[in-house]
Amino acid sequence: MSPTTELIAVGTELLLGKIVNTNARDLSESLSALGINVYYHTVVGDNPERLRQAVEIARNRADIIITTGGLGPTYDDMTKETLAACFGKQLVCCEDIAAKIRAYFADRLPGVQMPENNMRQAYLPEGCTVLRNDCGTAPGCAFYAEGKYVIMLPGPPRECRAMFRSGAVPYLKALSDAEILSHNIHIFGLGDSAVEEKLRGLMQRLTNPTLAPYAKTGEVMLRLTAKAESGAEAERLMTPVLQEVREVLGDVIYGIDADSLEGTVLRLLLDAKKTIATAESCTAGLLSKRLTDLPGASAVFLGGVAAYANEVKTKMLGVPETLIADHGAVSGPVARSMAEGARTRIGADFGIGITGIAGPDGGTAEKPVGTVYVALATAEATYVRNLRLGTDRTRVRMMAAHHALDMVRRYLTNLPVENI
Amino acid sequence: MSPTTELIAVGTELLLGKIVNTNARDLSESLSALGINVYYHTVVGDNPERLRQAVEIARNRADIIITTGGLGPTYDDMTKETLAACFGKQLVCCEDIAAKIRAYFADRLPGVQMPENNMRQAYLPEGCTVLRNDCGTAPGCAFYAEGKYVIMLPGPPRECRAMFRSGAVPYLKALSDAEILSHNIHIFGLGDSAVEEKLRGLMQRLTNPTLAPYAKTGEVMLRLTAKAESGAEAERLMTPVLQEVREVLGDVIYGIDADSLEGTVLRLLLDAKKTIATAESCTAGLLSKRLTDLPGASAVFLGGVAAYANEVKTKMLGVPETLIADHGAVSGPVARSMAEGARTRIGADFGIGITGIAGPDGGTAEKPVGTVYVALATAEATYVRNLRLGTDRTRVRMMAAHHALDMVRRYLTNLPVENI
Repeated sequence: MSPTTELIAVGTELLLGKIVNTNARDLSESLSALGINVYYHTVVGDNPERLRQAVEIARNRADIIITTGGLGPTYDDMTKETLAACFGKQLVCCEDIAAKIRAYFADRLPGVQMPENNMRQAYLPEGCTVLRNDCGTAPGCAFYAEGKYVIMLPGPPRECRAMFRSGAVPYLKALSDAEILSHNIHIFGLGDSAVEEKLRGLMQRLTNPTLAPYAKTGEVMLRLTAKAESGAEAERLMTPVLQEVREVLGDVIYGIDADSLEGTVLRLLLDAKKTIATAESCTAGLLSKRLTDLPGASAVFLGGVAAYANEVKTKMLGVPETLIADHGAVSGPVARSMAEGARTRIGADFGIGITGIAGPDGGTAEKPVGTVYVALATAEATYVRNLRLGTDRTRVRMMAAHHALDMVRRYLTNLPVENI
Repeated sequence: MSPTTELIAVGTELLLGKIVNTNARDLSESLSALGINVYYHTVVGDNPERLRQAVEIARNRADIIITTGGLGPTYDDMTKETLAACFGKQLVCCEDIAAKIRAYFADRLPGVQMPENNMRQAYLPEGCTVLRNDCGTAPGCAFYAEGKYVIMLPGPPRECRAMFRSGAVPYLKALSDAEILSHNIHIFGLGDSAVEEKLRGLMQRLTNPTLAPYAKTGEVMLRLTAKAESGAEAERLMTPVLQEVREVLGDVIYGIDADSLEGTVLRLLLDAKKTIATAESCTAGLLSKRLTDLPGASAVFLGGVAAYANEVKTKMLGVPETLIADHGAVSGPVARSMAEGARTRIGADFGIGITGIAGPDGGTAEKPVGTVYVALATAEATYVRNLRLGTDRTRVRMMAAHHALDMVRRYLTNLPVENI
């Protein structure tokens, strides 16, 4: 059983919503990689009594308490005083640190009298391990008392991260007894409840590794996590489960440990040495923006047309006016013509065409809001999906771009492109 | 004495550091604006027993408990069950919601059998106020029991924010004993420290209303908040301060209570009955995507070209090859030619041209990463900004689009367009 941890962030600015608690995220990610479970995050203001109560709660439910913030020189920095008192320790002046703080000031502000409150930073709980601050003046510390490990880190994210790495990780590694590894399984084309329906038995049966779903907007991610004495052993535990998930879900899995659908498509295009061009009506640039979010896109993305007005579809992409008149701007034939126009006019291997009704207006009984046609034109054929993507404008646009990326992925991996 | 609040976020992904708890920040900011104190944030995993313990702690130290997350259809979504049990309530099926969920599925996936676990979302604590989810299927709820107010919101940030605004704010306002009103002052073209420098005296002097800065990516927002017995009285307190801020900051204020820079530009274009077209190289559709994020964009945005490859600049926008050869694709003359090409080829009143080096590669000593030229072409003249926007790819692209929008705003409000 690995030790459990609670993170306590101290700072009224967090409770006012002025800043977001990124330290909790950063530390949790690193602790998880060390095989240390984080069970709670707590945020409390610069209030010694409320902090004391939070520490009392934490010591009853965690083996390790890591605080962030409240180590600075000002009167509202009360973390060391409060934690030391909770664990029956005195603060004592650490002469090394005091000398370092004096030197730091003399160096930066020569001739200026150092405000005396800076010396508060040199007072640390008796018997603690001092954690050096390479990015600021406030040192951190770690101690073991009354069966608990306590680690105090500074609040500024840069200082917190640096001190965690240089000071807290070596301290914690001695406590960890296992290697924990994860794989993320990325899925597009099946909703979260359908994924879970298919895998419920497996998820409930597994204890090590574990398999859990994480909903992402418009797609689904499963995380497989194994704990073992070595990384190789953890991988060995995961291999058959990964295989089983692949068998159950099939080709809706677009990647293992992928960064994003657009990243996956970008790499497939790079590998195939193919170029792409886009023609977007309702998404109006969202797809081209996503295709270029990552560096290196210029090798595969040539350009695109945001063809919002019908005249732009005609003038810039060569969509025949009669096609629009006969079928409507939101139709399979127009999506097809847009994709082919983008492909030939821009001179790419693939062309994408997207036309739809993002809403809230423009829907009809036959083509309600959320109706979207997505086409992929290749040298051999053009494929079209006819979709109903709900009524939320932002979601309709995002899902339309997702589908376009999915069509390219499926084409480049020799899977059926149109049916989903 | 205003009521105190604890926010409890439920989700193992938060404890694994996979995502950051932005809901806590967003809700804290909004609650603070409502005059409601937040004393604690807690994060707990998808574990009913640990959640139950967290709720027991919260009810002992807060008047209002707001949970986020764990309302979805999957087996690890346990928030409603756990909170209802903590407060001695049964879950009952809400027929309205059940019908809505069935309709949602029938609409999106006609003919497909809905996974039965989706119906879990229709079960809510008896006697609760149902909070509608306009962006997803999981409803939230609010109830009063055993002296505490409990509000449950969904985890996805977009759903959480929307439901907080539409459902939780009206619920909470009834608990507040004063009228609290705010105005947001939106600024582009002056950094946060410069804004603070100019207004420090005023900010420090004010007690009611208060004036506080909120950093937003690439722009600055100030929030003016007054508390009074009536809304009219609160407005009366704010009017002279708003006037003073306007006098100090001048035309970098682009709006009061604006939704966004693109929203502001969209309305200015609608009012002026002018149309716009875009030509984007390094932003590759980000600007056209933003211009169409809001409904109604089709009245002013005609279309755009994502001209990533030089040939696309030439073929689709008519940028002379010699111009690119002489000045480089990233240059003032090319941005100007792109803007004019977009304007005339697409046939709009205004054309935007953006060309730059988003990085990480492509920089030179003369034109380092972050060099961006943004041009606005009008019937009378073309304006160009030459910018250095740092080295972060995402930020360079976002700021380039911000500047393009700012140029349109300034042109349409008769302000100097080029200098910033």
